[in-house]
Amino acid sequence: MNTEITFKLPTIENINKAYTIISTFAHITPVMKSEQINQITCSDIFFKCENFQKGGAFKIRGAINAVKNNIEDCIKYGITTHSSGNHAQAVAIAGKIFGIKTHIVMPKTASKVKIDAVKSYGANIEFCKPTLEDRESSMERLINQFGYRPIHAYNDIRVITGQATATLEFFNQLKQKPDYIILPVGGGGLLSGAIIASHYLSPETKVIGAEPEMANDAYLSFKSKKFIPSVTPNTIADGLKTSLGSFTFPIIINKVYDILTVSEDNIIKAMRLIWERMKIIIEPSSAVGLAAIMENKSMFRNKKTAVILSGGNIDLMNIPWMK
Amino acid sequence: MNTEITFKLPTIENINKAYTIISTFAHITPVMKSEQINQITCSDIFFKCENFQKGGAFKIRGAINAVKNNIEDCIKYGITTHSSGNHAQAVAIAGKIFGIKTHIVMPKTASKVKIDAVKSYGANIEFCKPTLEDRESSMERLINQFGYRPIHAYNDIRVITGQATATLEFFNQLKQKPDYIILPVGGGGLLSGAIIASHYLSPETKVIGAEPEMANDAYLSFKSKKFIPSVTPNTIADGLKTSLGSFTFPIIINKVYDILTVSEDNIIKAMRLIWERMKIIIEPSSAVGLAAIMENKSMFRNKKTAVILSGGNIDLMNIPWMK
Repeated sequence: MNTEITFKLPTIENINKAYTIISTFAHITPVMKSEQINQITCSDIFFKCENFQKGGAFKIRGAINAVKNNIEDCIKYGITTHSSGNHAQAVAIAGKIFGIKTHIVMPKTASKVKIDAVKSYGANIEFCKPTLEDRESSMERLINQFGYRPIHAYNDIRVITGQATATLEFFNQLKQKPDYIILPVGGGGLLSGAIIASHYLSPETKVIGAEPEMANDAYLSFKSKKFIPSVTPNTIADGLKTSLGSFTFPIIINKVYDILTVSEDNIIKAMRLIWERMKIIIEPSSAVGLAAIMENKSMFRNKKTAVILSGGNIDLMNIPWMK
Repeated sequence: MNTEITFKLPTIENINKAYTIISTFAHITPVMKSEQINQITCSDIFFKCENFQKGGAFKIRGAINAVKNNIEDCIKYGITTHSSGNHAQAVAIAGKIFGIKTHIVMPKTASKVKIDAVKSYGANIEFCKPTLEDRESSMERLINQFGYRPIHAYNDIRVITGQATATLEFFNQLKQKPDYIILPVGGGGLLSGAIIASHYLSPETKVIGAEPEMANDAYLSFKSKKFIPSVTPNTIADGLKTSLGSFTFPIIINKVYDILTVSEDNIIKAMRLIWERMKIIIEPSSAVGLAAIMENKSMFRNKKTAVILSGGNIDLMNIPWMK
């Protein structure tokens, strides 16, 4: 994959326009702090609670923006995507909002809570094998057969622009610009959006991706400046198993300040700390930001750090520290 | 116990004054809504998230007010209370805020997370047998021996006045006054405070207590207009096992609109629904309000109902639906 950015990045006007659309349908999610977690980390952390977002994750921002930007075609042909979870729900909700036929390809290993949620928004589900190849080929088949319009989970500029509104909204909520903003990186849509939004709104803020060691493709790609895909990732952070895409890869490797990897143990520890101290439910993928702070204490000591908690969709029968 | 109210109820000025003190130290907790829970219940529910309060429960309001109203004696002699959990933490925090020696009598069966929390605020713990008799006699001994000033968990007008500020703050946050406000009832401090605050601020709002069937002393007392204590209560809502007191009993039986009891199964169901749909952590005692709505659907259909979620302190190794 070429590292050169040859496509047009969204402008701040694009992001503002997306936000006007998205804020009509999505929640303005709160920013929370925890004195106890600040004490433990010797840092000053602001948590943006996208776990409280509609559909339980930030993903609806990108889905709404992608659908709304191509609304006539989407209404005419229907929409589709492949996703193991949160993006599936987001597209299902976007379909419901705009009254569009929605067909989601989901791996048959997806958690029951996520499958039920997608169904509850009235979308059809097509189950596939839990491999990227089968997910993509199943979706291709639907596109070719029925003309459904694809809404990719991250590798779509409309989606990245939508995700950028999470950072835009976050910066609007903070009195001072933070020293760092940390986001989980899976396919890189949220992180790419943060990089672009920060570039316009707070260029002095360092944008950091946090990634499980067990799914460290973005880290390896960033360090080598070469596209290195995720191969059989085995992490509890199920939203972060995907590889970067042709749009997110060049944005991230050229513009991110750093990518920090975290252990599985620390993901669980950070997740439990947030449950216990903040009394909110986050999924494992949301915990990598705090885990990165905990693993790199000196870097974040006395710094103002913005963390996006990406989602809160977890099977409550399957809590990691109770295994 | 006499049903006649022979003591002076707090005035609205008392509550406002308490709020001025409390709001300096406690959080203004958010009000949350859930479209999905509204759909399930066919109601319009506003949840006041005292699980996000300092110490993880509303209890700090009463503790701060009680200590501040008698601050010189408290500083001179130290403070004490007996509590199985949230009030213990609240008094420990109040002690820390005002720099007061604090000695908490806790039953040795109290959950580890609550014991650790009390210790983390620098309070001393005196363990006792898990009976009301032993809790009270242990505390009496400390009072007699060392002169510590008692901060009762609910049967103290300063504490009731402090708890009334949860309802005051809630009403301030709502655009319209609700048809109902529902609160858990254990010892009755929160409910008594709500009755008094509603009397001044929204007399048209019906104040309802929600109580586990398995600890239905307030229900029986209200229906019979006689004081009936809680005898070997066996409920998962561990904060609601206590009996009404000499102050809370007459306030509640004379002024509450109704007391609704709920089954253990519905407490767990409501608790899980809040975790799953709202992505927030509440303890079982917090869930009785929603459980009461779910058990009395027609009563709350299309009504605007305010629910106070009293706390979020739960041992995360001990989640009821995973047993």
